[in-house]
Order: sequence, then structure tokens, then C-alpha cells
Amino acid sequence: MAEEDTYPGRTTASDLVSLRDRMRLFTAERDWSGFHDPKSVLLALVGEVGELAELFQWLPAADAGKLGKRDPLHSRAGEEMSDVLLYLILLADVLDIDLAAAANAKLTQAAVRFPAPAAKANGAAEHG
Amino acid sequence: MAEEDTYPGRTTASDLVSLRDRMRLFTAERDWSGFHDPKSVLLALVGEVGELAELFQWLPAADAGKLGKRDPLHSRAGEEMSDVLLYLILLADVLDIDLAAAANAKLTQAAVRFPAPAAKANGAAEHG
Amino acid sequence: MAEEDTYPGRTTASDLVSLRDRMRLFTAERDWSGFHDPKSVLLALVGEVGELAELFQWLPAADAGKLGKRDPLHSRAGEEMSDVLLYLILLADVLDIDLAAAANAKLTQAAVRFPAPAAKANGAAEHG
Amino acid sequence: MAEEDTYPGRTTASDLVSLRDRMRLFTAERDWSGFHDPKSVLLALVGEVGELAELFQWLPAADAGKLGKRDPLHSRAGEEMSDVLLYLILLADVLDIDLAAAANAKLTQAAVRFPAPAAKANGAAEHG
Repeated sequence: MAEEDTYPGRTTASDLVSLRDRMRLFTAERDWSGFHDPKSVLLALVGEVGELAELFQWLPAADAGKLGKRDPLHSRAGEEMSDVLLYLILLADVLDIDLAAAANAKLTQAAVRFPAPAAKANGAAEHG
Repeated sequence: MAEEDTYPGRTTASDLVSLRDRMRLFTAERDWSGFHDPKSVLLALVGEVGELAELFQWLPAADAGKLGKRDPLHSRAGEEMSDVLLYLILLADVLDIDLAAAANAKLTQAAVRFPAPAAKANGAAEHG
Repeated sequence: MAEEDTYPGRTTASDLVSLRDRMRLFTAERDWSGFHDPKSVLLALVGEVGELAELFQWLPAADAGKLGKRDPLHSRAGEEMSDVLLYLILLADVLDIDLAAAANAKLTQAAVRFPAPAAKANGAAEHG
Repeated sequence: MAEEDTYPGRTTASDLVSLRDRMRLFTAERDWSGFHDPKSVLLALVGEVGELAELFQWLPAADAGKLGKRDPLHSRAGEEMSDVLLYLILLADVLDIDLAAAANAKLTQAAVRFPAPAAKANGAAEHG
């Protein structure tokens, strides 16, 4: 039995592709694709970013990391971040964008744009 | 040779884990972890969502999908969406959140919260 | 009787100053000024922008203007836009920014940056 | 000479109405009203909120207030906040919303929803 059969709609190769496929199925089953023009999905993403911001807005900056690792905030943040991710994946799908490839390319560019200090880079190479 | 060895820091199992690991290395090489408190990373994510919004704001809604599949908008959107994704992955790492697990759980909950119409669900089951 | 006495905390000279003064009083009465660092207020503003976006996200773009002029959406939009405005006024106050002066200056700059077509400009001059 | 004549398009009664009127003239002179559907204006507002967030994202939270009161950040923040305000005023105009009235009503509701502690309220009444 193929490994991807052990999880419905999931492959071992890519979380992002797996989530995209689950979103596609979810959308198709509900006939919601007509709502998924880019500007609408973008506004939905903005809505979820807003909900994420509300979780952290009044926390003292110095405590936010510690509090965010504990429930109830940890679970709440995971849910809102999931919503952001899912709308981002949906938008990528609507625009035929390979999000993993684009993000890997962006990181490669960022490494050129912001060169690591030499000593640090050597250190990192030793870990690599 | 295992496939994961062909790309530094990449595994076949998960794009999200692979991107997280590249972000970790990138951050460590530049000594930037001190900047990565949740509120700062959240504002950086908001900044990137803003840049993404600017790409689409004045496009007629009916044309945005078509235009977004063509360059130059396709490449630009891929870059801004990558930035959003990378800050989301960084925030998840700062908060010890498993983004793929959280997003899969959220989709499972969403399927309960918004049940698919029966006929559609059957249709989907036939495809599945 | 002083003019500002006709509306508590309100002057006739400026809505923005009047709202700022009401926000100051509101904050002082609740001892909330300690929470109002710029990054926190900014995240609160992002949260309200998110709530505003949620009101419009799935509306067909062509109908959004018409629907937004009717209740219940008209009232809901007015409330969320008020929250955005109030956090913007609060942030300006925290940073000692005169929002009316800054916005008027920005509009004057915008008129230089985006010159009006001549015929239009003449027409506008006639109205002016 | 009446005070409102000293500033073109400005009245003494309301900064928000004055800015709205300048935006209307600016839009009319450029024939841009066709672009100003609510979802487009909302995305433009999101873009400006993103630019504002970028100014503060990596500042230490404890220093952001002090730094934001000094140039160059003070001027930059004033410009980005103006852009947010102007798109908010434009959106209110598109939706026939009286932003000053709505914000004053929201503050009145907020005072009911979050009652001030009695001692504080008395203290505030003494200042008032």
C-alpha cells in the first residue's frame, strides 16, 4: 500500500501540497470556488491576521514569547495561524503559485541580499 | 543516497519543517534571534500582507485571478506570499507550534463546523 | 460659557482633536496608558482592520458598495471603522503626531505627485 | 475674512469632513472614482497599515515610543498614518458613513462596556 494512502489526501512529500489538496476537496464539496477570487481570499487572510494580532496586542512584549508557548494562548495562536496558512495556500492555488518553491527561492535570494558575517557563516557551515 | 541529502536542510517529509529549518539557520548565521519576539514577527507579517494587498488593490475583481496567473504579477505575488509564509513559519517556531499539525486539525474541525451537503459529500466520497 | 462646554471634551474646531481628548479621558479613567506602547496599539489597529475586512470578504465586489450602504452592514462597518479610527488617533497621540496636519500635508504632496489632467484641473479650479 | 477661507477646502467645523472634501476633489479631478469600490479601498488601507507596521516591527517595544517621537521615524509614521486615515475617510465616504458620529457613538458604548473604576471616574470628573 502506498504511504500516501495512510492519511486521506496526504502525501509524504509536502505538507503544503497536502493542505492544498485538502482545501481543494473542502471547497469542491461545498461549491465555494465561486467565492475564491484573489481579492476576497486576500481580505479573508487579512481577517485571520487580525484575529492573530488580537491574541497578542496587549501582552507585554517581553512576556509574549513565554505566554505564547502555554495554553490557552498556545492553542489559540495555533488555530489563528492555521487560518492564515490555509488562506495563503488557497490564494496560492487560485494563482497557480507553488508556495514551497517560491519560499525556497525567496530564502536563497535573502541569503544573497543579507550576507551572513564570515565567522558566523563558517560556524554554520560546520553545523550544516 | 537519500533524497533529503540532495538539498541542504531539506527533508522529503515536510516543506514546512524544511522551510523552518532554513529560517533557523538563516537567523542563527545573522544573530537575529534577539529580534524575533512574537509581536515583532507579527508586525513583520502584517508588513508583508500589506505588500501583497498593494499588488491587487486596484485590479478589477473579475480580472484579478487571470492577471495574477501572468507575469509580472505572478512572480511578484509569489514573492510577497513567500514573505508572509516565512514570517508565519518563524512565528510558529518562536511559539513552538507545529503548523502542519495545527492546520490539518483546523481543516478537520472546519469540516464538522461546515458540513458538506449530502449529495456533494457523496460525490466527493466517490472521487476520494 | 466656553465653547468646549457644549459637548463634553469636544471643541467645534476639530473632530480629530475632540476624539483624541475623549480617548485620553477614557484611557486615564481606566489607567490603561501603560498598555499603549506603539507596537501594542498598532497590533490593536491591525485587529480592527481584520474585523472590518471580515465584513466584506465574501461579498461580490460589484455589490459591496450597495450592500455597505444598507443595514445591517452599514452599522457594522461604521463600528469597525470607528475602532480603526480610534486606535489610529490613539497611536498618533502616543507619538505626538498631529493627524489632521499630517493628512492635509500628505494630500498636498499627493496632488503634486499625481498631477490632475489639465482639463480636469481647470474644471476643478472653476468649482474651487 | 472668515477662518474657513484661509485654507482651501477647509472648514472650522470638522477635520474629517474637510479631509473627505479634499479627497472627493482629488478623486474627481483624476477620474478615479471608478476604482473606489469598498474591497479595493479596504485592500489599499491594508497596504498602508502594512507600511506603518514596517516602520516599527524591529524596534524594541520599550524604545518604540521614544523613537517614534523623533525624526526620521516621527515624520515617516505621520505620513503612513495619514495614508491609513485618508483611505479610511474614503471608505467611509463610499459607504455613506459619518465617521465622526460613528466614532463618538463607539466611545460612548465603550464607556458603558468597560466602566471606569469609581474612584478613577470621580477623579476624572474633577478634572473635567
